[in-house]
Amino acid sequence: MPGPLSDIRILDFTRFQQGTFGTAQLADLGADIWKVEQPGGDPGRTLGRHRSGYSSYFESLNRNKRSLCLDLSGAEGVAVVERLVEHVDIVAENFRPGTMDRLGIGYEHLRTIKPDLIFASGSMYGPKGPRGHDPGYDTIAQAAGGMMAFTTLDGETPHGAQPGMADQTGGSMLAYGVLAALVHRLRTGQGQKVDVSLYGSQIALQGIHVARAWTDHELAPPGRSSGVFSHRALCLDGRWIAFGFLEARHFPRLVAALDLAELATDARFAEPEGRGEHIGALVERIDAQIIQTESAEWIERLRAADIPCSIVQDYESIRKDPQAIANGYVHETEHPIWGSLAIHGPVALFSETPASVRTHAPVHPGEHSSAILLEGGFSEQEVTALLETAIVLAPNGDDVSAGA
Amino acid sequence: MPGPLSDIRILDFTRFQQGTFGTAQLADLGADIWKVEQPGGDPGRTLGRHRSGYSSYFESLNRNKRSLCLDLSGAEGVAVVERLVEHVDIVAENFRPGTMDRLGIGYEHLRTIKPDLIFASGSMYGPKGPRGHDPGYDTIAQAAGGMMAFTTLDGETPHGAQPGMADQTGGSMLAYGVLAALVHRLRTGQGQKVDVSLYGSQIALQGIHVARAWTDHELAPPGRSSGVFSHRALCLDGRWIAFGFLEARHFPRLVAALDLAELATDARFAEPEGRGEHIGALVERIDAQIIQTESAEWIERLRAADIPCSIVQDYESIRKDPQAIANGYVHETEHPIWGSLAIHGPVALFSETPASVRTHAPVHPGEHSSAILLEGGFSEQEVTALLETAIVLAPNGDDVSAGA
Repeated sequence: MPGPLSDIRILDFTRFQQGTFGTAQLADLGADIWKVEQPGGDPGRTLGRHRSGYSSYFESLNRNKRSLCLDLSGAEGVAVVERLVEHVDIVAENFRPGTMDRLGIGYEHLRTIKPDLIFASGSMYGPKGPRGHDPGYDTIAQAAGGMMAFTTLDGETPHGAQPGMADQTGGSMLAYGVLAALVHRLRTGQGQKVDVSLYGSQIALQGIHVARAWTDHELAPPGRSSGVFSHRALCLDGRWIAFGFLEARHFPRLVAALDLAELATDARFAEPEGRGEHIGALVERIDAQIIQTESAEWIERLRAADIPCSIVQDYESIRKDPQAIANGYVHETEHPIWGSLAIHGPVALFSETPASVRTHAPVHPGEHSSAILLEGGFSEQEVTALLETAIVLAPNGDDVSAGA
Repeated sequence: MPGPLSDIRILDFTRFQQGTFGTAQLADLGADIWKVEQPGGDPGRTLGRHRSGYSSYFESLNRNKRSLCLDLSGAEGVAVVERLVEHVDIVAENFRPGTMDRLGIGYEHLRTIKPDLIFASGSMYGPKGPRGHDPGYDTIAQAAGGMMAFTTLDGETPHGAQPGMADQTGGSMLAYGVLAALVHRLRTGQGQKVDVSLYGSQIALQGIHVARAWTDHELAPPGRSSGVFSHRALCLDGRWIAFGFLEARHFPRLVAALDLAELATDARFAEPEGRGEHIGALVERIDAQIIQTESAEWIERLRAADIPCSIVQDYESIRKDPQAIANGYVHETEHPIWGSLAIHGPVALFSETPASVRTHAPVHPGEHSSAILLEGGFSEQEVTALLETAIVLAPNGDDVSAGA
């Protein structure tokens, strides 16, 4: 079964992470991605690169895409874009604002060729405002967007959440914006410009916290602890577990599962208020109990008691987790060059139009140059001429006769 | 101009955060949300509640929605759902898996009434697999999904990113899944079931890190530091700034902007390798310089030098930031009960079909019970009967004659 975006084509100028994750999210849905790389390739190819040459970063962000390598520095390259855009539904990019216009392939120009075009841009700060044209990337967005301040304890050097998390969030929002515009175009025939940014995405991601700070002027303590909702404790085997904690409906079942049923009738802990007041003593008792036994046994007991819980998993545990595998969240594959690889699988499951990882990321910039040009209405003679004049580049062996 | 999802109706059983943020993302796009609350209301109403009664948590997750309060415990309530579902495009829910079926309003049943229905579920672990029916929420997902392990330094009690971040990410993925299913339905007339989960969303959010761990078996250091990409330094006024740092193309301009141009020709620092090797000495010089001057001046100088940079903003700075305001990322509003409020604005900007925050969250469960039922094909007599038998609840003053 094809994905929900089968036969939707995207001319994709995205690079590094925000934009590439956005179009990867659309590629998982079955869209046909023509990834335009300039000579030298997406600079993201050099990030997270293993000594073998394999970039886990690039692979995870560019699976399901095909690559056209095109010199955009002159009129000939622009002319190629102008012809290709007639054959696509969507253009996506995350250059610094103004770059697409400077290259001669901005929205206002391309829409004259393809009036119902959807043109999606991912930027650092959003298109408007005094810093609309400023550069930036993931960590700058975590600094600007409040993530860094929130997750840092007093006196520490500010640190954010994980590197790349703001980019990845901005990318999901780009996919969201494109899909919404596609719904509108299917209903009305009208295309449009869609803008998302790292900054705006960070704010929305923290929607519950900004709303609290902006109105109550009271802020939850920094993100390190959320003891009311869950507790983390160390087990005998050195692994940590997290579980639901102070909630009234969980507490009696929790302490019973921990062989600490007496705590449920202890005057200090019987009521939620008391548990809050005597939290130190409570935690001490629970931690002292949990360290006596291995994590797997605690998880089994907590699950049997229907307490929300999990081992604090690392990535290796996740890869082997039957739960992640059953839902397709882990995509294992055999790469012709790099052998066994695993990357994240599609994030949404569709009963009728499954999302999927169908192909590896393009190993070389321009790996599909000829095929894309032919599908985009160029003749074999034209393709040959573009390759000969190096307006279009292809790795060795990719010529017209080799086809797709 | 209406949003891209205008005239799309969602019968929305979501509660707490994952599902409610998902449908809030769709509501921002103009979808008409019929939020079904059971007697007592969405339990999310009690979270983040200020002494005034205002819940910033609930407001940010339920703006743009209307509320129908319905007793789902018996056949009469189910019959109401069965009639309403004929008038909607989408059903969304994030109960524990199995709950909608147990209530008698699961996908397999509702699709017999509305064959092209899109039915979206957000769960903890995904619908399949050994833990598919387990309970869970944000912190458990951060534990299971690798976020907690990744962001914790050795020896620390595991902590995740911010509370609510996994829920918010899962919610965006729900919106993504629904939009993709809507594209498919518009193209083919076919509805379907869509499943997303906190666990799967966490894995995808960390796509670049899981890909690295799963294949290279080398992991970047925990998320606290990403010194190669940016540096954080304390300024004279006590604020921190973050800026692009070691990259070859930035370094000479950076040190010039910091009045440390001599570092660019210092043999230790002139080349990227040397900078990596002597990072301690380099950081010491830079930090000693930055502490001499106020943050605003540094930002001005760094921006003039075109170095990616930002103040490490807290939420109050963001609210006042002309950049956030210009792009609509801050939504200021006057609430009839709670006065001046601010919540996050829409995350995507559309040139033709703007997303928007149009209404406050429903103050009371059932605030729009009558209006929704009338729009859903019930007669005034039927509405009156449902209110009298308390199958449908409405706050005082909401009766048929009050209308919408």
